[in-house]
Amino acid sequence: MQLLKDRICSEGKVLPGSIVKVDGFLNHRVDVNLLRQLAKEFKAHFGDRELTAIMTVEASGIPLATICAEEMGVPLIFAKKAKSDNIEGGLFKSEIMSYTYSRKVTLIVSAEWLHKDDRILIIDDFMARGEAMRGLVDIISQAGAELVGIGIAVEKGFQGGGDRLRGMGIDLYSLAIIEEATPAGFRFRE
Amino acid sequence: MQLLKDRICSEGKVLPGSIVKVDGFLNHRVDVNLLRQLAKEFKAHFGDRELTAIMTVEASGIPLATICAEEMGVPLIFAKKAKSDNIEGGLFKSEIMSYTYSRKVTLIVSAEWLHKDDRILIIDDFMARGEAMRGLVDIISQAGAELVGIGIAVEKGFQGGGDRLRGMGIDLYSLAIIEEATPAGFRFRE
Repeated sequence: MQLLKDRICSEGKVLPGSIVKVDGFLNHRVDVNLLRQLAKEFKAHFGDRELTAIMTVEASGIPLATICAEEMGVPLIFAKKAKSDNIEGGLFKSEIMSYTYSRKVTLIVSAEWLHKDDRILIIDDFMARGEAMRGLVDIISQAGAELVGIGIAVEKGFQGGGDRLRGMGIDLYSLAIIEEATPAGFRFRE
Repeated sequence: MQLLKDRICSEGKVLPGSIVKVDGFLNHRVDVNLLRQLAKEFKAHFGDRELTAIMTVEASGIPLATICAEEMGVPLIFAKKAKSDNIEGGLFKSEIMSYTYSRKVTLIVSAEWLHKDDRILIIDDFMARGEAMRGLVDIISQAGAELVGIGIAVEKGFQGGGDRLRGMGIDLYSLAIIEEATPAGFRFRE
């Protein structure tokens, strides 16, 4: 999606270790009008699949997933990252490695709010190795629900997570796939 | 706001310790159409104050704050709860007590994305003792920005956090203030 690629080129930054920062418009100070444009693009791709809910992981995927849920007329379910005292029993859980925080994290979704007749589209702002996606796919499978597809705003193609999910037969649609990120600039997958 | 109070009465639950759960529509499986109605109500109250951004804390306040930001035509800034390796130096920080997780948590906002000419409306889904709000007010003050007001969907009035903020002269507008929550039902402040 050219709009998003242009924005990455003009405002994205690259830190050592090929860390891509797009927090000025995507995941810290968030341009919600841009998110609405991205949501329309996801709707064009996934909107006819009789979705019943959008799923994401807290926290930075939530703004985009919220706008997508409204755009497609379904509720938003977000997986949480730690056990709070306020969640009763009956949880779907999946342990993932968070490279952002350099530690293992358990994703949880209350069994009360994810059902076997759900048809789920996963939405996230960013994907590198795809660990969070692996956890959500696992949780959807535990619930006996159906995964319709995955929509990602920015995929770091060179880290392989996206292609691994595609190899599993999942319809993964990323709006911008970065193949190379250096201080000199970005190169996208065609 | 009657719409929200009705929803709390029909779908909210009360756990031991007067813990109020509204996760079936507000903060786990989220009814985004309801959030749009709440956002319109906040806009009616705060919309003429020349806001430059909406602020919230990750994670459960983000869906409502996202819709509010779009409704009012400003960006969304969300404070993060732990230091990730991907945030450069230059942070505003405030330590708060999280009663949900029974431990201290540090809220952080990158100084790059909160400016002294910002006019901020804080939005959150839920307030009990008001610790998260105290942290955000502190961060806004550190940035030299202006706090225009605070909008809360569900306030637990009997825990005193809201009245403490009102006592500081802050324009705090809560759409439903629960004065009593028992297994028998809810009583709201008039």
